[in-house]
Amino acid sequence: MPLQTFTPGSGWRDCHGPAATPDRGLQFGDGLFETLRRSVNGAFPLAQAHRSRLLLGLSRLGFTDAASAQVMQAFDTALTDIPEDNAPQTGLKIIVTRGMSERGYLAPPDIQPLIFRQFFAAQNLNAVSPAIVAGENPVRLGAQSLLAGIKHLNRLEQVLARQAFEPGWDESIMLGAHDRVIEGCMSNVYVKTGGEWLTPELHLSGVAGVVRSWLLQQGLVREADIRRTDLYDCSAMAFSNTLTGIRSVACYQGRLLTESPEVADWQACFCRLFD
Amino acid sequence: MPLQTFTPGSGWRDCHGPAATPDRGLQFGDGLFETLRRSVNGAFPLAQAHRSRLLLGLSRLGFTDAASAQVMQAFDTALTDIPEDNAPQTGLKIIVTRGMSERGYLAPPDIQPLIFRQFFAAQNLNAVSPAIVAGENPVRLGAQSLLAGIKHLNRLEQVLARQAFEPGWDESIMLGAHDRVIEGCMSNVYVKTGGEWLTPELHLSGVAGVVRSWLLQQGLVREADIRRTDLYDCSAMAFSNTLTGIRSVACYQGRLLTESPEVADWQACFCRLFD
Repeated sequence: MPLQTFTPGSGWRDCHGPAATPDRGLQFGDGLFETLRRSVNGAFPLAQAHRSRLLLGLSRLGFTDAASAQVMQAFDTALTDIPEDNAPQTGLKIIVTRGMSERGYLAPPDIQPLIFRQFFAAQNLNAVSPAIVAGENPVRLGAQSLLAGIKHLNRLEQVLARQAFEPGWDESIMLGAHDRVIEGCMSNVYVKTGGEWLTPELHLSGVAGVVRSWLLQQGLVREADIRRTDLYDCSAMAFSNTLTGIRSVACYQGRLLTESPEVADWQACFCRLFD
Repeated sequence: MPLQTFTPGSGWRDCHGPAATPDRGLQFGDGLFETLRRSVNGAFPLAQAHRSRLLLGLSRLGFTDAASAQVMQAFDTALTDIPEDNAPQTGLKIIVTRGMSERGYLAPPDIQPLIFRQFFAAQNLNAVSPAIVAGENPVRLGAQSLLAGIKHLNRLEQVLARQAFEPGWDESIMLGAHDRVIEGCMSNVYVKTGGEWLTPELHLSGVAGVVRSWLLQQGLVREADIRRTDLYDCSAMAFSNTLTGIRSVACYQGRLLTESPEVADWQACFCRLFD
């Protein structure tokens, strides 16, 4: 029977077209997404890292080879088949779901993936505030190694964490089990301790961001086991994501931190990728 | 900019109508669902338990009072405003999302919830196999007290767990942290130990099913901390969900279990609710 939607005043009406069969993205969050930034010259400089993470996600979620091939074809064309009126410095969000199916966690073997994209106006990187205020988020991340690192569509922890921001916070630290530091709500985190920049291991939770991969590949930061208490005496802290780049933390939980020159260098380098 | 979808062969096309703006159900699994069974005489006997769980879920996810009121109005009419051609003994799935919004975990304060329903042909309760085969699922449930008990749309753990079924399994036991028994992949679980029927506490993970609530309210089962090893020497085991009712486990991990007369009584009682 077709899906129906409710509108106050008019009650229940049938959905029509593809919307009449429920998408497993809607039913179970059964899918993945990527958010990319387009450079001034129209390229997607970190496309390869997004592509790798998407492939890893498809494998982790058990998409069939045929479905994965279709998703990757869509991903590749999404970055090249651009509407002519699309401005540079835009963002591009790609959402992939396993496809439409009736109730039940088991997907039919021949299910066809659904792939969506949306361009949006991204903030100019040079206009991003270089130093931000952050605090410790009361929402803790659950541990699930099967989903750690990938950018899947089960994001209720982040939705709840974002609701829990205190006034004045630009970002917040999310802790996992055993008081381990994992990430920010919308970004990855870096902590300077003993002169070295560290970023949390993401074996149990968290999203392995592409900017984080970019910093790791250059040897600028190192993965480590970071405890909540390490944040009390670190000398500097930074967050990264694709849309805002890399930002220093000026104040964490009321404690003032000095802006590290490395972070400004990283951000300058990152901005040049998108020139 | 509108959402676009990809079709192999024809490429990227704009979505139209409401589908042009992404639903937070799709983006983040930001919502809840309920699956109800309709009785032969057209009623929904456990509607109150479904209603209570939905209300708890709306509160946990931080839906505004206005949004919650709208959802509950839709829930109530979904159970009374039934298409005339709807057969009895049908199932009804209701999906609620926070609504449509652009990217970003923070929802606008005036966001309108989206509510969907779908009727489907439910299996006849009397035709349900009374005894089933189950095993231990390799997928472990993460711990997240903020989401435990409610029926939210972040169900990737269940999707992965369902994929991990071994041939011949009808259900499987999902363990949480510290080898605790939590639930089945698609149902709640009951374990008979020392002559008493126990069901796992769901403080850290799991869905608090309405059949489980119904058994608890009658004092037929008791909540307890159940360890993985308790399953090695329990005398009987059962699973419950709204669509199949209550079923005995005939074989768990290759060990034969005797069907308990209590379970047959419970199932008979449950079936009568839907006569």
